[in-house]
Amino acid sequence: MKTLITNGTVINATGTAQADVLVDAEKIVALFSPGTTDVQADHVINAAGKYVVPGGIDAHTHMEMPFGGTYASDTFETGTRAAAWGGTTSIIDFAIQKQGERVQDALETWHGLAAGNSAVDYSFHQVIGGVDDESLKAMESLVDEGVSSYKMFMAYPGVFYADDAQIVRAMQKARELGMMTMMHAENGPAIDVLAEQLVAQGKSTPYYHGLARAWQMEEEATHRAIMLADLTDTPLYIVHVGAKQALEQIAWARDKGKNVFAETCPQYLYLSLEKQLGASSEQWGDFEGAKWVCSTPLRAESEGHQDAMWQGLRTNDLQMVSTDHCPFCMKDQKELGKDDFRSIPNGIGSIEHRVDLLYQGVVDGRISLPRWVELISTTPARMFGMYGKKGVIQPGADADIVIYDPNGHTSIGVEKTHHMNMDYSAWEGFEIEGHVDVTMSRGKVLISDGQYHGTKSHGQFIKRGLSQALI
Amino acid sequence: MKTLITNGTVINATGTAQADVLVDAEKIVALFSPGTTDVQADHVINAAGKYVVPGGIDAHTHMEMPFGGTYASDTFETGTRAAAWGGTTSIIDFAIQKQGERVQDALETWHGLAAGNSAVDYSFHQVIGGVDDESLKAMESLVDEGVSSYKMFMAYPGVFYADDAQIVRAMQKARELGMMTMMHAENGPAIDVLAEQLVAQGKSTPYYHGLARAWQMEEEATHRAIMLADLTDTPLYIVHVGAKQALEQIAWARDKGKNVFAETCPQYLYLSLEKQLGASSEQWGDFEGAKWVCSTPLRAESEGHQDAMWQGLRTNDLQMVSTDHCPFCMKDQKELGKDDFRSIPNGIGSIEHRVDLLYQGVVDGRISLPRWVELISTTPARMFGMYGKKGVIQPGADADIVIYDPNGHTSIGVEKTHHMNMDYSAWEGFEIEGHVDVTMSRGKVLISDGQYHGTKSHGQFIKRGLSQALI
Amino acid sequence: MKTLITNGTVINATGTAQADVLVDAEKIVALFSPGTTDVQADHVINAAGKYVVPGGIDAHTHMEMPFGGTYASDTFETGTRAAAWGGTTSIIDFAIQKQGERVQDALETWHGLAAGNSAVDYSFHQVIGGVDDESLKAMESLVDEGVSSYKMFMAYPGVFYADDAQIVRAMQKARELGMMTMMHAENGPAIDVLAEQLVAQGKSTPYYHGLARAWQMEEEATHRAIMLADLTDTPLYIVHVGAKQALEQIAWARDKGKNVFAETCPQYLYLSLEKQLGASSEQWGDFEGAKWVCSTPLRAESEGHQDAMWQGLRTNDLQMVSTDHCPFCMKDQKELGKDDFRSIPNGIGSIEHRVDLLYQGVVDGRISLPRWVELISTTPARMFGMYGKKGVIQPGADADIVIYDPNGHTSIGVEKTHHMNMDYSAWEGFEIEGHVDVTMSRGKVLISDGQYHGTKSHGQFIKRGLSQALI
Amino acid sequence: MKTLITNGTVINATGTAQADVLVDAEKIVALFSPGTTDVQADHVINAAGKYVVPGGIDAHTHMEMPFGGTYASDTFETGTRAAAWGGTTSIIDFAIQKQGERVQDALETWHGLAAGNSAVDYSFHQVIGGVDDESLKAMESLVDEGVSSYKMFMAYPGVFYADDAQIVRAMQKARELGMMTMMHAENGPAIDVLAEQLVAQGKSTPYYHGLARAWQMEEEATHRAIMLADLTDTPLYIVHVGAKQALEQIAWARDKGKNVFAETCPQYLYLSLEKQLGASSEQWGDFEGAKWVCSTPLRAESEGHQDAMWQGLRTNDLQMVSTDHCPFCMKDQKELGKDDFRSIPNGIGSIEHRVDLLYQGVVDGRISLPRWVELISTTPARMFGMYGKKGVIQPGADADIVIYDPNGHTSIGVEKTHHMNMDYSAWEGFEIEGHVDVTMSRGKVLISDGQYHGTKSHGQFIKRGLSQALI
Repeated sequence: MKTLITNGTVINATGTAQADVLVDAEKIVALFSPGTTDVQADHVINAAGKYVVPGGIDAHTHMEMPFGGTYASDTFETGTRAAAWGGTTSIIDFAIQKQGERVQDALETWHGLAAGNSAVDYSFHQVIGGVDDESLKAMESLVDEGVSSYKMFMAYPGVFYADDAQIVRAMQKARELGMMTMMHAENGPAIDVLAEQLVAQGKSTPYYHGLARAWQMEEEATHRAIMLADLTDTPLYIVHVGAKQALEQIAWARDKGKNVFAETCPQYLYLSLEKQLGASSEQWGDFEGAKWVCSTPLRAESEGHQDAMWQGLRTNDLQMVSTDHCPFCMKDQKELGKDDFRSIPNGIGSIEHRVDLLYQGVVDGRISLPRWVELISTTPARMFGMYGKKGVIQPGADADIVIYDPNGHTSIGVEKTHHMNMDYSAWEGFEIEGHVDVTMSRGKVLISDGQYHGTKSHGQFIKRGLSQALI
Repeated sequence: MKTLITNGTVINATGTAQADVLVDAEKIVALFSPGTTDVQADHVINAAGKYVVPGGIDAHTHMEMPFGGTYASDTFETGTRAAAWGGTTSIIDFAIQKQGERVQDALETWHGLAAGNSAVDYSFHQVIGGVDDESLKAMESLVDEGVSSYKMFMAYPGVFYADDAQIVRAMQKARELGMMTMMHAENGPAIDVLAEQLVAQGKSTPYYHGLARAWQMEEEATHRAIMLADLTDTPLYIVHVGAKQALEQIAWARDKGKNVFAETCPQYLYLSLEKQLGASSEQWGDFEGAKWVCSTPLRAESEGHQDAMWQGLRTNDLQMVSTDHCPFCMKDQKELGKDDFRSIPNGIGSIEHRVDLLYQGVVDGRISLPRWVELISTTPARMFGMYGKKGVIQPGADADIVIYDPNGHTSIGVEKTHHMNMDYSAWEGFEIEGHVDVTMSRGKVLISDGQYHGTKSHGQFIKRGLSQALI
Repeated sequence: MKTLITNGTVINATGTAQADVLVDAEKIVALFSPGTTDVQADHVINAAGKYVVPGGIDAHTHMEMPFGGTYASDTFETGTRAAAWGGTTSIIDFAIQKQGERVQDALETWHGLAAGNSAVDYSFHQVIGGVDDESLKAMESLVDEGVSSYKMFMAYPGVFYADDAQIVRAMQKARELGMMTMMHAENGPAIDVLAEQLVAQGKSTPYYHGLARAWQMEEEATHRAIMLADLTDTPLYIVHVGAKQALEQIAWARDKGKNVFAETCPQYLYLSLEKQLGASSEQWGDFEGAKWVCSTPLRAESEGHQDAMWQGLRTNDLQMVSTDHCPFCMKDQKELGKDDFRSIPNGIGSIEHRVDLLYQGVVDGRISLPRWVELISTTPARMFGMYGKKGVIQPGADADIVIYDPNGHTSIGVEKTHHMNMDYSAWEGFEIEGHVDVTMSRGKVLISDGQYHGTKSHGQFIKRGLSQALI
Repeated sequence: MKTLITNGTVINATGTAQADVLVDAEKIVALFSPGTTDVQADHVINAAGKYVVPGGIDAHTHMEMPFGGTYASDTFETGTRAAAWGGTTSIIDFAIQKQGERVQDALETWHGLAAGNSAVDYSFHQVIGGVDDESLKAMESLVDEGVSSYKMFMAYPGVFYADDAQIVRAMQKARELGMMTMMHAENGPAIDVLAEQLVAQGKSTPYYHGLARAWQMEEEATHRAIMLADLTDTPLYIVHVGAKQALEQIAWARDKGKNVFAETCPQYLYLSLEKQLGASSEQWGDFEGAKWVCSTPLRAESEGHQDAMWQGLRTNDLQMVSTDHCPFCMKDQKELGKDDFRSIPNGIGSIEHRVDLLYQGVVDGRISLPRWVELISTTPARMFGMYGKKGVIQPGADADIVIYDPNGHTSIGVEKTHHMNMDYSAWEGFEIEGHVDVTMSRGKVLISDGQYHGTKSHGQFIKRGLSQALI
């Protein structure tokens, strides 16, 4: 079956083109100047006045992630459906290995969760939660299996935490294999001391989560990760940067020519620590603030972190925006930490809104249109080894296409446009001056006319190659 | 007439595609996945095993430039023909207004020189060599005439020099008009003191040219230009960066989110001050060194400037590479400075070799293939407001296409491949592990099978829009 | 005659000592541990509970300075008497040479103004306002005459302004002679463009003085001066630093090991641009603001310049505090600029309050007691080549001694403690938690018991040696 | 008994004075201008043509330190006697508590080692090698006992190592008590991985010690220590800085106004990694290199670390020079690591040569005379809370005085001037253009006329107060 998307403005990462896009089965097979070619298509989509952009790639999601005795509330089914609603056609989730487990088993488990349950294509980063001889050995097969990136945590001692000796060993292995090392950069041991002290002083509301996870400990771990990567001569990718001081370390590393990359997330662009005070007028907030408990935490508004993140997106010290989508309901989940912020599951759900929230940055004059595409799709594809197949509107690419209406409007809210499996929205009340009209995944229209036409069996595993982004 | 370029690997700035390219008359009208479309073409070019890249854009050339009582030795005819040989299909030359002249007259003069004499398309930056009320007023019509950028000189007092008061006034006008300010950033008044002192001491060989133009004075002027642009809130583009310390200032500015851009030139990537000693074993060199007299000057090898420039290209603190093509013959031209380096016309000819020399950077592992395309074509197009028409292989773009053979070879030398109107080559003996097989300009093949098929009437003036590169 | 200062706490730049100080005639001849030595003194001063510190050295004053058609309102007689009241026992004023004048004549003129008219010792920096062969030649005799420092202005085109070529020539001469180059670092040509434009727009109140002299142009000139000093390999001293960005440049230079020094002034530690709005509620202030018109100008409070200056004093990126004492009365003087801020004589009078204002920094926890002494006396002495004679309490030093009462109190105001020849105080209403009890100059008590005992013939010219402060 | 030191040039940290110094019993009681006072002294020392400086303070020594199954070869008796020979009159050694020991016991042990066995005065820093509730509690009594500083190690896991959680807890306690936190800043866990891998590869000669302890891991730990100190708002002192990149981090911290201090040691000023190759021409050196095995290690000469250290001393990013005196003999001690560099006891002996080696820096034009005194005596005294008693020539101070002859000469070598209990000298062959003529400690002449007149019972414990050095 052939589909022709006509009259639209194609936007790739370096600029725009007035071009028709011909899709045949799952692939883009041609781009034409309108009217120059006689095409027989089974289906024609008129994109006049609209943007034709490569489908969004969310490189950081956590479907059904186990955390603190519960699980992230979106399954692959609900989460990828919400992704489709929001113009995201690929996700990279995390297969989580813990100390004592086999890496292969963890990966297999996540394949099992996703296969047959995904509306859009998916891939995996591997979490190595227990670096030892066996897990290092197991890393060797990952690249062949299409998993060319893995993550470690400098936070969460006793859970996912890797110490510096373990990090060195894993990075050496990554260098040998060409894998990208991803890092949760917060000094967990130090943070846990502060958190314990706060709770001991009776300071247990969600707001203290943000105080305990001080920016100094994000900055410090970021610098440390950079130097461990320098020591082992391997690229590094910092996840969910929220503190401007951490960003300064990344800029410092890049100025020295190091292959250091980083993402921020929509919450660090738009939300601030004060959110965690909740609706209450009490001095240190009420439990409502739990809605915005995530790690790295939201930072104080007056310190200018949000502006710094936007600037980092402009200067390319931050190369892309992922969601760190890790949703938990307030009821039964966030509530686990009612008496102690340390027991609140960490996470915010944003998979449905990333493309829109970044587009609002275009409207607000923060970034250019091509940069929007680069941030939400092209660079994620290049960073994680799937450019060509994903991340660009060109012949040979998967027909993962979003038709975005710059004259449309999107109101975010649980009662309005919410498709994630959460009983609240961290983004309640946000208004976007644009709208995802059509989402197409590998040639199939998942979203159009305000309807979902997808199936949970459509999404396929993306076997990724090595990163194409090294500076 | 339709031309099909088939079986090649199309390279754009973000990556590659296996795609056929259909050219109709002067335009690219379609890209196909090979075999997916039934195309009737008048002419087929088989690019199997080769790269299909957007034609090179050299944004800094000086054809027939008057300097020190003589003229740059390439006319538009000879210079653009050499460009075509080297895979460059667009140049931006400088229309030079001096104190006391009308800006419009200067622009008209350069139009007269280029029109009907150019093998490839051309455009102009305007030099404002005499900032005053009249020339500022005259700037107002430039954008409409397709000249969206202008240059000033912080060097050459008494010739092109603009003082800081003039620079402020011009930048304010540029901000009003949306024009890009280009700057030759060297502290001319200070340099001239040093040069005069050296000559007075009998130190008059070409080598002293490099000593007089100390890096401190390039760094200083770069910082000053940045701050004057900051004061007037306008973008800035630094030409021909050669000193690592100047680059550090640019990186500093970009880290702060300022719209500061910069080019380097092939000579700063490959050549060093020691060249200016010439072939002689005399302590301070002989006149042979005049071949490499240019401004900004070549820098001392041991100080690491070349590596810094390559790193700047990787980190995007340098966004592009132009030639500053300003050729002079040794005989009768460079010889003017036989007794006093200050009388040596400043300039090196490289227009023919830029695409090759940068490709060698790919071979040497300095930059990636897509970055090569970005540096030689895509960013120049975006920086100077002609992306879409130039700088990319996509439907609607001018069919400015180079077919580059990664298995070819190019030996540079006057007796070998030299087409510039110079009696020597600054690049004599350089070997390139690649080759420009075909150069096509607006659908017309200028170079193929080692033959030049162009005409001096083919090239057209490119009316440019505002810069598309702001960060 | 011998004077014994007993029971006090002697404070030098590195710490304190419980020691008696014996003065014989004009010199300190001994320090004793109290009670260890049997001393016959003609006069005993009991300093119990008080600090015995070296007399203040104000290295930047302008008595009777010609500016904009008028003269600074303090003569050497009135100004040095006010200095004595405020604990300052040495000043370094500026002998001002202008284009077309002979340097020797200028110096002689200032000797004439000061000799026989000074309550405390004085010295001169030479202003070279017209760098040419003759003035450069004249510099050669200055060191022998005890004038080991000179100043140039990057501001005030047409008045004192030196262009970069002149600066290079003068710095080369200074390097040859070992002299310290002092620099007024503001880009005058650029500032004058802005000022002219503001006035043309009818923005002529004092407040616009501060806007025209934008921080970018202080930062820029500071960097430029640093690089010109680097080029000529000579030390540099930046006067009256007020912008945090200029300070950042100084810190940058010092981190690279350059011999770059700087002073700030009390006004940049305590006052802000908003002062220049005056008492009026009009949007852009009234003429009252003229009281605080000085150059470099006061900076906007919200931008954090004051905190940056205090931090610079702690980190030693600023080595000392001078006043730039340049008083003008409102009547007949500041009023010259009633219709055009450009005609307001630039200057603030502070000579009487520097020691107190800095002591308040000790009270406020900004600096330590020894650092106070270092900033007001020891470093000025070392910086300008008179340490040993001045700037320290030790045998052999001139008996320039202040007895400071940490339990005293000083209220600043025209009606209260004002001895400068001004019809207003820029410091009206400031309260200091300390008090200058006794000021002794070369063994003679000038101030005690709230009385002035000095004479206008006491002060002598200080023949200075080369700087003792190079890092 | 009174001693008069006459005709010398007294040098304190800010400059010189021509002054006689009167010592009564253990104290300096007066300074006079020569000839101004009639003094009856029992003993007169003629210091004509010589420098009279405060006795050296070596703030980092390890007498009899247990390490790797052996003990540092100098006892307090031999080590402090060597100190006296070299012009050092105070040392601060380390009382070492390990996991499982009581802090009080450790301190008592070291008191026992030193008391009655020291030629010069001594004090202690406390090592907290096992941070837990008990040791934190024990810290509370230290300030009262005159131990106002303590050290932790980020290196040596399983021995002295403190993890980040422990460091936070200890720093919080230090902040509460006003204590100075000293840090051995090397990332031990990462280094141990590298070391293990090298040995496993058969790379076990001393040279690999330096490779395993990569500069990246010194830089990293330095940054981490800075941020942990920032988090806990407490001052920090980095010991034995050797890598220029670590120094850059310290400069960065100080530029931000943080109370971060650091020492370097003579070995990082004069020696380099290449020393560790030993005398052999074998590729990776022979065991001779063990003589220079210390931690942090010597760094590669070509990387410019030595120049960086000297520059840091000039710019005050390094405030002082200690020895980290930790001597081991080759025989039976260094030899423990003959087959595995990890078993070589870490340490170099320099206590005898620090004053001389730094004075050579004056001769070589690296530092000024007053800065020499500041580095070897005044700042150590201020940094560690004993200024006034030590570190200055002024009334009331202990009569710890060195008479240094700038016309003397000192040849370093085991056969020549060696008094340390070592069978080799790391400084063999160094020539110093100056000489310690007299060392006086609390009024008693220990060294004069090339003879040692001291006793092992002379030295007393110095009860120190809080640091006087905070910026």
